[in-house]
Amino acid sequence: MKKVEHIGIAVSSIESAGAIWKTLLNTDIYKIEEVLTEGVKTAFLQSGPNKIELLEATTPDSPIARFLEKKGEGIHHIAFEVDDIEAEMARLKAEGFVLLNDVPKRGADNKLVCFVHPKDVGGVLVELCMNQD
Amino acid sequence: MKKVEHIGIAVSSIESAGAIWKTLLNTDIYKIEEVLTEGVKTAFLQSGPNKIELLEATTPDSPIARFLEKKGEGIHHIAFEVDDIEAEMARLKAEGFVLLNDVPKRGADNKLVCFVHPKDVGGVLVELCMNQD
Repeated sequence: MKKVEHIGIAVSSIESAGAIWKTLLNTDIYKIEEVLTEGVKTAFLQSGPNKIELLEATTPDSPIARFLEKKGEGIHHIAFEVDDIEAEMARLKAEGFVLLNDVPKRGADNKLVCFVHPKDVGGVLVELCMNQD
Repeated sequence: MKKVEHIGIAVSSIESAGAIWKTLLNTDIYKIEEVLTEGVKTAFLQSGPNKIELLEATTPDSPIARFLEKKGEGIHHIAFEVDDIEAEMARLKAEGFVLLNDVPKRGADNKLVCFVHPKDVGGVLVELCMNQD
């Protein structure tokens, strides 16, 4: 894993959370993108080599809506950048980790992504992501 | 803020969580350090420019013990590296953020640190940290 690509944060409203994170990091949101398949609107802020991804639910049954209902606003996942997502998925599977998707899926920010089951990582939801550029 | 310096993860046991994270990130723990003033034992793993900091409570009334009791294992905080911690603290104070310590305090990994109140950041505990090297 090359680095923390981004940290995903579940928020009730990108508008209000975005204002807080813009002030905190002293930088602007540089991209807002909706991922229709996940029922989520995302906003990205840069911090050096890393990003903060704010996640707002756009449908009441989306994973972010369910997370907010259960846990409230807060850190949702950590995404690590990988060079070869299929190789990393195979390595983790062989090590006994349960993956939430069997084939890489299209995420925000033009990435191919895969999630590792949080039960295997002490409650932490970990995403692998690979650039498609 | 220059980058995500580390992500702090509250764990019941560095021994068992360490084994998981070593396998997940495919790298070894490179440092274990106890911060007596915080009642915490820390273990660090590198991921490119970033670190994962595992946090185990060493006293029953430490902040990590209280976190584990309330929320269970999971992501505890995000730490951003800053060049001048006093300047960043002054900037955030002026912007209305409440800081959990008024002067920088000594953290793990030879850092000076300051925490921002999570109520001001939508439930996310944010740490500022500056190298003392």
